[in-house]
Amino acid sequence: MLNAAVLGASGYVGAELLRLLAQHPHIRATRLFGGSRAGEAVATAHPQLAADYAGAYFETFTGDLEGVDIVFAALPHGETQKIASAILAAGVPFVDLGADFRLNDAAEFERWYGETHQAPELLGAFTYGLPEIRREAIRSSRAVAAPGCYPTATILALKPLLPFIEDGSIIVDAASGVSGAGRAGKEATHFSTVSESFAAYGLLNHRHTAEMEMELGEGVLFTPHLAPMNRGILATCYATAKAAFDPLQILRDAYAGEPFVTVSDEPPATKWTLGTNAARLTARYDARTGRIVALAAIDNLGKGAAGQMMQCANLMLGFDETAGLARSGVCP
Amino acid sequence: MLNAAVLGASGYVGAELLRLLAQHPHIRATRLFGGSRAGEAVATAHPQLAADYAGAYFETFTGDLEGVDIVFAALPHGETQKIASAILAAGVPFVDLGADFRLNDAAEFERWYGETHQAPELLGAFTYGLPEIRREAIRSSRAVAAPGCYPTATILALKPLLPFIEDGSIIVDAASGVSGAGRAGKEATHFSTVSESFAAYGLLNHRHTAEMEMELGEGVLFTPHLAPMNRGILATCYATAKAAFDPLQILRDAYAGEPFVTVSDEPPATKWTLGTNAARLTARYDARTGRIVALAAIDNLGKGAAGQMMQCANLMLGFDETAGLARSGVCP
Amino acid sequence: MLNAAVLGASGYVGAELLRLLAQHPHIRATRLFGGSRAGEAVATAHPQLAADYAGAYFETFTGDLEGVDIVFAALPHGETQKIASAILAAGVPFVDLGADFRLNDAAEFERWYGETHQAPELLGAFTYGLPEIRREAIRSSRAVAAPGCYPTATILALKPLLPFIEDGSIIVDAASGVSGAGRAGKEATHFSTVSESFAAYGLLNHRHTAEMEMELGEGVLFTPHLAPMNRGILATCYATAKAAFDPLQILRDAYAGEPFVTVSDEPPATKWTLGTNAARLTARYDARTGRIVALAAIDNLGKGAAGQMMQCANLMLGFDETAGLARSGVCP
Amino acid sequence: MLNAAVLGASGYVGAELLRLLAQHPHIRATRLFGGSRAGEAVATAHPQLAADYAGAYFETFTGDLEGVDIVFAALPHGETQKIASAILAAGVPFVDLGADFRLNDAAEFERWYGETHQAPELLGAFTYGLPEIRREAIRSSRAVAAPGCYPTATILALKPLLPFIEDGSIIVDAASGVSGAGRAGKEATHFSTVSESFAAYGLLNHRHTAEMEMELGEGVLFTPHLAPMNRGILATCYATAKAAFDPLQILRDAYAGEPFVTVSDEPPATKWTLGTNAARLTARYDARTGRIVALAAIDNLGKGAAGQMMQCANLMLGFDETAGLARSGVCP
Repeated sequence: MLNAAVLGASGYVGAELLRLLAQHPHIRATRLFGGSRAGEAVATAHPQLAADYAGAYFETFTGDLEGVDIVFAALPHGETQKIASAILAAGVPFVDLGADFRLNDAAEFERWYGETHQAPELLGAFTYGLPEIRREAIRSSRAVAAPGCYPTATILALKPLLPFIEDGSIIVDAASGVSGAGRAGKEATHFSTVSESFAAYGLLNHRHTAEMEMELGEGVLFTPHLAPMNRGILATCYATAKAAFDPLQILRDAYAGEPFVTVSDEPPATKWTLGTNAARLTARYDARTGRIVALAAIDNLGKGAAGQMMQCANLMLGFDETAGLARSGVCP
Repeated sequence: MLNAAVLGASGYVGAELLRLLAQHPHIRATRLFGGSRAGEAVATAHPQLAADYAGAYFETFTGDLEGVDIVFAALPHGETQKIASAILAAGVPFVDLGADFRLNDAAEFERWYGETHQAPELLGAFTYGLPEIRREAIRSSRAVAAPGCYPTATILALKPLLPFIEDGSIIVDAASGVSGAGRAGKEATHFSTVSESFAAYGLLNHRHTAEMEMELGEGVLFTPHLAPMNRGILATCYATAKAAFDPLQILRDAYAGEPFVTVSDEPPATKWTLGTNAARLTARYDARTGRIVALAAIDNLGKGAAGQMMQCANLMLGFDETAGLARSGVCP
Repeated sequence: MLNAAVLGASGYVGAELLRLLAQHPHIRATRLFGGSRAGEAVATAHPQLAADYAGAYFETFTGDLEGVDIVFAALPHGETQKIASAILAAGVPFVDLGADFRLNDAAEFERWYGETHQAPELLGAFTYGLPEIRREAIRSSRAVAAPGCYPTATILALKPLLPFIEDGSIIVDAASGVSGAGRAGKEATHFSTVSESFAAYGLLNHRHTAEMEMELGEGVLFTPHLAPMNRGILATCYATAKAAFDPLQILRDAYAGEPFVTVSDEPPATKWTLGTNAARLTARYDARTGRIVALAAIDNLGKGAAGQMMQCANLMLGFDETAGLARSGVCP
Repeated sequence: MLNAAVLGASGYVGAELLRLLAQHPHIRATRLFGGSRAGEAVATAHPQLAADYAGAYFETFTGDLEGVDIVFAALPHGETQKIASAILAAGVPFVDLGADFRLNDAAEFERWYGETHQAPELLGAFTYGLPEIRREAIRSSRAVAAPGCYPTATILALKPLLPFIEDGSIIVDAASGVSGAGRAGKEATHFSTVSESFAAYGLLNHRHTAEMEMELGEGVLFTPHLAPMNRGILATCYATAKAAFDPLQILRDAYAGEPFVTVSDEPPATKWTLGTNAARLTARYDARTGRIVALAAIDNLGKGAAGQMMQCANLMLGFDETAGLARSGVCP
């Protein structure tokens, strides 16, 4: 068994990483760094993990990675910048979920995040961790920046269709479950705010737009919404077709053989992916308007976060890419 | 007190009509037609109405409207066609929610509904019942076809913006609560299908597209989604601007003084409208992509159905337009 | 129109009071006291009230009640004690929802709330505001302490059955929607904590036990639960019967003619009461075990809080007891 | 790999069995019997399983079990009676979830189910499959009747406490998620019936009472409730203590070393068990009333159905009891 360190283990993505590691055949979590919850029992912060993590406590990260074979980080943006050079220097494979090292251009980071990047010299050290697009690069990387949840769904749905659509015509309309907003209790995530409600947020300026534009190579108008559910992202993507074509067939061909991507005719439901690393896609060409609609559903904490991190780790460590990862949804 | 007949009183829209009529100052429901539930107690079919409708039973509609001052119908499409001429002949004001008389062109009906219209000669007798657009016509009408839920939200959001946007550039991406699918129990509306799930449906061919196109005067690409909630519709509408402009100000000006339409800067949440006849709007111009985003939230059973029917009835009968209608949401 | 002051207007009960007052025929809210939100627009704190309270702002309460005809307070426990004497001195009718003046014994207050009562001399000035039990006393009172949500449901279900059940045999098992926990954002009320979860809390020591015991006159074992819903309380009450009897008939007789209490054979669902001041009851005698089960469903913010306050106010002010109150649930 | 047949594979428990088998290290599903859905693709009936069961179709069961190493059945009650003798004759280990062979007394079956048992001579061939109570018997059995979901939670919570409580004093108040009602679409399971609602059902006569009484050896008053969630059962159990004692310690001692049962001080939430075979327990002694409260939370499709079936199968087949089973909940 290899030993993993998890930074940000007390948050929602941290909990999902710990759940996945509890059933991974080759990796276990041995160092759990919990920031402000250091000293607290894992079973207190994550009671759903009480049996698998009985007796475990969160630590404060001081840079010591003795005996650690891989590092996972799920920290607020800005935090990984401060510790990345130490982790890289330790020579331990590193999978980061934060936004700090996803963009390959510090100016773009500053434009969307409104902050000066503290470690621009390390941007080149990280591979953008979407295995279906960059499998070989991830396999040979020592550091991976796993994509955001919205970009994962959007890029999977649109990337293979790019040759067939007009530049500058992409609109992404997506909905997310509430866990994407993180664990902190606030009025915006109160059950009584969210339940029985559907609303857009971050109009015109959601930060994930930058990743979409980087990977798709063109401007994107992106509107995220909050749906009254725990998990799940559905991206409904629109673009103008250069000419009539069959986007469903293009997607089927592009993802044939992919273990975690399934393309079907039926519009996907987020629930099909609950608790998994699966992505479910469909697409249509609309002869009436000359546009395409392409949809992707994922679990924002699975393929949109912890699952994808594990998939990257499996590649980096030479394990079966699917080790410890499910693709049959917890449904109903 | 005037006496109302309700056709389709055993369904979800029927229940909402009965709830509204129980608190209306000038109209009460005296004839409750319940189709397949004729003979059943209202308190059995709608236990939430047991106190206000104690002792009431559903009847079968036979055409008798003796003593009735206004007729509301909330029937499956195709049903109103069969009885409209009888109701019109009786000379009783008629507010219909079905799709049969919304479109002003029988060919469009047949194109989207796949059926020959049985009473095309009556299409001209109905006014499209969106008071904010056609208040005076409704006031002087004897028959009104209340709009569908998606078109209500979409038209309110986009109609005032039409002079400023490019023809053929409209995309409507909307989400609805489950009550929009009607009361019948089926796998698609099972709690365990819907809960914790978000999915698109009716890709490219949802019938409400026809109404949107009729009222907006151009082609629309419309994608409806099902959200895990009882009520509520949020329409997120996109279009290409002819030039930079402020769509929020246009909407504010267009709806100044409207009792049920509120325009604000904050993106609206469907829950704000729960149990009401309110519509909540916002809009943005995106200088990066040259597009606008306009959003509208309503209660699909309120402003999207029974509330709007009551608003039309108030106009037709000469009552205060807001009689019996709320605009403060049942929230939390 | 009479003028109402609302203390605690920025919370959930405050919002429901404002919603009810917006549709009340004889009372309107003219002074909105919002504690920590003083200075904030009502439309910001309660966007669902934006149309009816356009231009209204929360104030800080300084004791001035000039022009006020009735005071409603929905404050955290301990707060009303500080201001009650001033309100009583002003001679304005006062309906309080806090726990401070519900118990008629300061020792009981201190036992369950762990604090010394600051105004024990005023306990006698308040009537326990459950109209179905104390209608005439409320009518002639200048100060009413409206019951807690759990006690309202429990007392309605059990009080008429007391002559037929064994002393000391009462067990109350109840579930509440999340709005009962108040508006503050915290991990315990986070959507992702609550959704898809059902749990007990406050084992053995929930403070509402004291009210139940005061009104029922005997010891009660009470277990509250949190259900993944916004509103609603269902109390499932158990007791040992002295002999075989028909508790359903006893309840029917006890509440015949009550406008807001409906007794039926079918087990009630909380949703039937959503947005209303209704209470729905049923009961059974179990010959196998010699016990009775009595159930009551209410909306915790309606009959369990703001609705009941309004019902009391109507009685105190000489209005129709049902003015401004609904009993048909917002359902589906 | 051993080959499993699943009868009732098209239902909710069937789906969960297929999900568990897709990740089981030693057993895979090779025969999927789907009753009325025979001939349908698994991916159509259970789209969440599309990747793991690509190309699989439901069959009609004709008795042929060639090549099958274990049979799982999740059929409506009454169905297993018809085929049990054939399965037993085939000599294949058999785990049944139906109610047909749980009770050891045909008269009790007829009393609670209202039907004559068709195979009373086989009742003795089945072991009641609750491993924590009957591990060794299960290990050596060829046929196991897995307990119902409510009895599993109730028996785990109360069995160790029986020596300390008064005979005839047990009351069980429990809540279940909607998946327990099965997959069929009907008004009672419609999202808009269930969401935002909490209600009791089956007052006094729920069939699971029989199992509880069989295993606990005394009369039980049981009230089930429906909670607005997909999965999860919480049983809140009451009984009168013979004398003061510490039920929490008794439970801790009873389940020390059990892989799937965790006893903690904090009241358990159903969500902690989502997607797992875990049971979470707590208990209290109330000195005020002399009663105990004992609570158990499980996933009704996990430890309450498919998980427990797999745990039994692991024991019967000589595998690690925990093979293929999770105990860290899918949470948030």
